[in-house]
Amino acid sequence: MGTAQLAAVPEPKYWHLRTVLLRAIDSEFATGQVIPNERELSARFGVARATLRQALDQLELEGRLVRRRGIGTLVAAPRVGVPVSRREEGEAWQPVDCVTAPAADKLAGALGVPAGELVHTVRRVRVEQGQTVATESLHVPDRSLEQVPEIRLSGAALTGEEQARAVLRRLERLTMDGESRAVELGVAEAEEAALLQRPPGTPVLVVTTQFAAGGRLAALAVSTYRADTCRLTFGETGLVEVRPAAPVRTAS
Amino acid sequence: MGTAQLAAVPEPKYWHLRTVLLRAIDSEFATGQVIPNERELSARFGVARATLRQALDQLELEGRLVRRRGIGTLVAAPRVGVPVSRREEGEAWQPVDCVTAPAADKLAGALGVPAGELVHTVRRVRVEQGQTVATESLHVPDRSLEQVPEIRLSGAALTGEEQARAVLRRLERLTMDGESRAVELGVAEAEEAALLQRPPGTPVLVVTTQFAAGGRLAALAVSTYRADTCRLTFGETGLVEVRPAAPVRTAS
Repeated sequence: MGTAQLAAVPEPKYWHLRTVLLRAIDSEFATGQVIPNERELSARFGVARATLRQALDQLELEGRLVRRRGIGTLVAAPRVGVPVSRREEGEAWQPVDCVTAPAADKLAGALGVPAGELVHTVRRVRVEQGQTVATESLHVPDRSLEQVPEIRLSGAALTGEEQARAVLRRLERLTMDGESRAVELGVAEAEEAALLQRPPGTPVLVVTTQFAAGGRLAALAVSTYRADTCRLTFGETGLVEVRPAAPVRTAS
Repeated sequence: MGTAQLAAVPEPKYWHLRTVLLRAIDSEFATGQVIPNERELSARFGVARATLRQALDQLELEGRLVRRRGIGTLVAAPRVGVPVSRREEGEAWQPVDCVTAPAADKLAGALGVPAGELVHTVRRVRVEQGQTVATESLHVPDRSLEQVPEIRLSGAALTGEEQARAVLRRLERLTMDGESRAVELGVAEAEEAALLQRPPGTPVLVVTTQFAAGGRLAALAVSTYRADTCRLTFGETGLVEVRPAAPVRTAS
């Protein structure tokens, strides 16, 4: 496949500008630095404000620029590498609340239990470097926990957070066979968006994790990570520590 | 955190419409079915054409709708689960070409070799169910292959594809210590977009894989998957086969 053929692809105007801007940002500005305002940029690059705004929107979506009200547009920090795997996540997740309710058809189907079965849904947020980077709904059918003794707490009614911690502690006592994961692009629904402090519709990376114990699905976690600031890392055992990969997509 | 607080998040008009449309699509239409045209939809939902178009664009971006010229807007097939791991990828990748050249600073840095070192870059595409779902640049420093005998082929000059196959065969003979991976959101640059048959700027899932051999980085693969049609799956050993997870984000 020749490059002549590839070069013939039509490129929208804003896209060309986005690439030119990216090069300028990389060579002229440091992380956290404020770039010139829209008026100056449209004059410098000889483009309409609408085209410029589209290119800036695109770079914000890609996590290369950040807009701050009253300050201007800043060069964003590089994405944070966020390890994904039970072993590595450690104490990164903070329980928010827990709802115990009969499963609706869709959730029951995904968990492989009859509709109406009791399911605990623990909501958690993940904080890295002081920023909420992900939110998670962890669904645990009550029957998964039936072998594990219930944890007795004081007589007072439990808060949502205490209930969440109780379910998590019981889940930890299960011997897991393993876990499997899927990653796909999604968009933040209203509630997730609020927890992530982003507008609804913000692109997110959705990680679905199935936990198996005793030969069946014991729990299902649906985690949504901010796509603008996160880079999900999957370490594998047996690997010597190699340097973190720098972005090289435009290097060759 | 109460739901009252979460509900107070402002929701743009198009976003509300997108959620309503999604519900209508799920309940009234099957995969591959043509949905009503823009005029009918804007009348049915009592919204301006501009708002409707924004909601349809959003659903196309999410891979829920597909626009076909001369046909209309169709309900998209569910995303294809694409296994990511050397073991599972098997023969999914098809070599396209190979370029052998001294590494520029950025690539050399990512590979941990001095700038100017000879690096083979194999370009491949991945085809699933008749569709090109991903494109990859696999960077292999020549020094990684120095222990592996060169494969002698006929005297004639090799095509790019033959060179790619020769590099891949030598790489296969290396004993790998392991691999580590990162996944993040990206956008298709012009060349990738052409190979994926999508416009430049299309959202992609970028998978960066580092291969270690003999205690150092032996190769680096940067793969870009179509985010609208792919769901990357990461199996883990020791896991019993559980049913594929259905989308459950809106189930709870």
